[in-house]
Amino acid sequence: MIDYDAFLSQAAARMQESAIRKMGTVLAQVEDVISFAPGYPAPEMFPWQQFQEIARALLQGDEGRVLQYGPTRGYGPLLEAILELQAARGVGGRLDELLVTTGSQQGLDLVARVLLDPGDVALVELPSYTGAITAFRNAQARLAGVHQQADGIDLDDLDAVLGRERAAGRRVRFLYVVPNFQNPTGLLIAREKRRALLEWADRRDVLIVEDDPYGDLYFEDSASPADTRPIKADDGAGRVIYLSSFSKTLAPGFRVGWIAAPAALASKFEVAKQASDLCSGGFDQRVVLESIKRGVLAAQVPRLRAHYQHKRDVMIAGLRAELGALVSWPDPRGGFFLWATLPGGVDAEGMLARAVSRRVIYVAGSAFFVDGGGSSLVRLSFSAPTPERIAEGVRRFALTVREELDAQTH
Amino acid sequence: MIDYDAFLSQAAARMQESAIRKMGTVLAQVEDVISFAPGYPAPEMFPWQQFQEIARALLQGDEGRVLQYGPTRGYGPLLEAILELQAARGVGGRLDELLVTTGSQQGLDLVARVLLDPGDVALVELPSYTGAITAFRNAQARLAGVHQQADGIDLDDLDAVLGRERAAGRRVRFLYVVPNFQNPTGLLIAREKRRALLEWADRRDVLIVEDDPYGDLYFEDSASPADTRPIKADDGAGRVIYLSSFSKTLAPGFRVGWIAAPAALASKFEVAKQASDLCSGGFDQRVVLESIKRGVLAAQVPRLRAHYQHKRDVMIAGLRAELGALVSWPDPRGGFFLWATLPGGVDAEGMLARAVSRRVIYVAGSAFFVDGGGSSLVRLSFSAPTPERIAEGVRRFALTVREELDAQTH
Repeated sequence: MIDYDAFLSQAAARMQESAIRKMGTVLAQVEDVISFAPGYPAPEMFPWQQFQEIARALLQGDEGRVLQYGPTRGYGPLLEAILELQAARGVGGRLDELLVTTGSQQGLDLVARVLLDPGDVALVELPSYTGAITAFRNAQARLAGVHQQADGIDLDDLDAVLGRERAAGRRVRFLYVVPNFQNPTGLLIAREKRRALLEWADRRDVLIVEDDPYGDLYFEDSASPADTRPIKADDGAGRVIYLSSFSKTLAPGFRVGWIAAPAALASKFEVAKQASDLCSGGFDQRVVLESIKRGVLAAQVPRLRAHYQHKRDVMIAGLRAELGALVSWPDPRGGFFLWATLPGGVDAEGMLARAVSRRVIYVAGSAFFVDGGGSSLVRLSFSAPTPERIAEGVRRFALTVREELDAQTH
Repeated sequence: MIDYDAFLSQAAARMQESAIRKMGTVLAQVEDVISFAPGYPAPEMFPWQQFQEIARALLQGDEGRVLQYGPTRGYGPLLEAILELQAARGVGGRLDELLVTTGSQQGLDLVARVLLDPGDVALVELPSYTGAITAFRNAQARLAGVHQQADGIDLDDLDAVLGRERAAGRRVRFLYVVPNFQNPTGLLIAREKRRALLEWADRRDVLIVEDDPYGDLYFEDSASPADTRPIKADDGAGRVIYLSSFSKTLAPGFRVGWIAAPAALASKFEVAKQASDLCSGGFDQRVVLESIKRGVLAAQVPRLRAHYQHKRDVMIAGLRAELGALVSWPDPRGGFFLWATLPGGVDAEGMLARAVSRRVIYVAGSAFFVDGGGSSLVRLSFSAPTPERIAEGVRRFALTVREELDAQTH
């Protein structure tokens, strides 16, 4: 027998499967589970017919480059179109600051590889997105957690954590934030805090990695474009690396995201991407471009806002009706996620087996905490299930919580 | 001004743009260049109409998962189909040994990340594929070069290099080879050498990374399936990590490759891929699966063999007619590449500016050598240009060589 462990890199020896992906595996084994676990967009909202027409046009065979290898930076006309999209969000920029990625996850991976040496510090929120956590961990970085408040990251704690890490002789490379409808909490970082973050980054000489997959998906009853204006929009100094994606607004099956960053960093991301996958899919990129040019994306976004807002409403109404004051949460003002606190003493991870037996599933909050916290929290995604399934899933979830509470007291 | 260099990881500080990709950039700036540089498949051979039909069927909207996030391992039915394809090449295997990758380049990157720590040794041929070289370098590995013979890697030199590296106290993780129609030389590793490599790997306790994008594309006048039988086919001990791809047989615009490896390593590649891009494109994977199921791939491969064989013939005839004995090369028995030695004293990199002015382009051999060698060699790809363009490109190339020789002697 070959001892394969002896061949592993230090990073690989430590690599662990993502909690959310693990959920997916559990899920696949149980019939008729209602899943609030993965942050999947609603497939019934994908613009199928338009994609079909676009695919037919692209695959006529009159333009060989559609299916050829393409530039590592991305397909030129798509890059131009992304510049315009960004401008609508208030983000200026030039072509040499832009890079198409194979989904936003590749963006996070490139950030990790280009900016992190083993032992370097990445500041993340408590809680933070698991995909970022694993990408940064794979670079063997040290992840230092910063507390949150209702209006986003706690600036005092941020500066205290930075000070502590530096006092210990460590290099702090960047702060990672998801300012719009954060995964997993759904929180928005307040406008004045965004400005304060930029000033802080400049004062402390760190970079900001701003991950913005959900910004377009604000709910019109409680948020506005002004609330979701990216930090990058006011980044005169070049402190911000901005990541976004078409996975939530068009479809994740086409793997297209992007990075906007100072040109000196963008060129490093490009070289790192060369070795990672040469180029993102030529067909996928052209489907996205055509969706922009034909107005499919522009028509899609308001539909999605209303769609996910309605699903949020169904989930909140169900939780109120079924669990009353037993669980609490900040009302999501956009995005895919509701972040709920379980009644005292209930452990979200421990409750999971019971939830599966009740055929409902969620992600236990601890997956999102780099400091071991979050045991009484759950992330409930309302994006993918139909409203009927959300209502039924919440009933099953409520039953699970009540049974768990009963089991504790008896 | 922010000093971005101060934020770079050690790997990023050393990252360099690939020579082949750089060629692409030069190429894009010059009009009517005939390019023998990139190893692109012939776009006129892509099965456009079948892809169009497949896309229409996939995008009907009756199956939401087509455009949803999917399993990191790959789409289950595609994995099953790949097992069958491999079996036809003599390679056995189970599902837990298999992983879909976003092109074969991602496979190389995952290999690097899972197996290489900074300073670890990867053995590569002199010359070797640049995409592998950059992926391994990004992991800060030491690349030790092994000489080639006409029938592939030099086994004596291989063992000598291994011995030298180990004597210096370094860990040698694997040997990287492209046994079928190697990029850049077009060489085949002889059958008995393949068996000897397996015995050697077992005896010396190293792994073999076998990269096989071109195996199906043998030329029927001079090679057979028996000649291209993968090393992995006889790998009873579990020494071989096998990489392959649909980029050369279907189209690279759909980014689909795969890795077959011992289960313990495959699961590490999976976790590394999670953080790299979550999953390969759901649409792309299904296009490939449908191309297999509908017989498109099976019909395609013999057509491609004949097509590329003809293009090779055109290139060889042109080189003989135009340059006679001035340049020499081993006749390619498959694949995309002709590896030519320039007349004494001509430097391939130095000649490039003249070639561009004559509107023809190639990759200078030095790009493929980790030891600084290869200055008088060029890689000429005959895969993408039409036969007419190949003939004209060879005329321009011959003119370039003759002018360069003249300039030297005067």
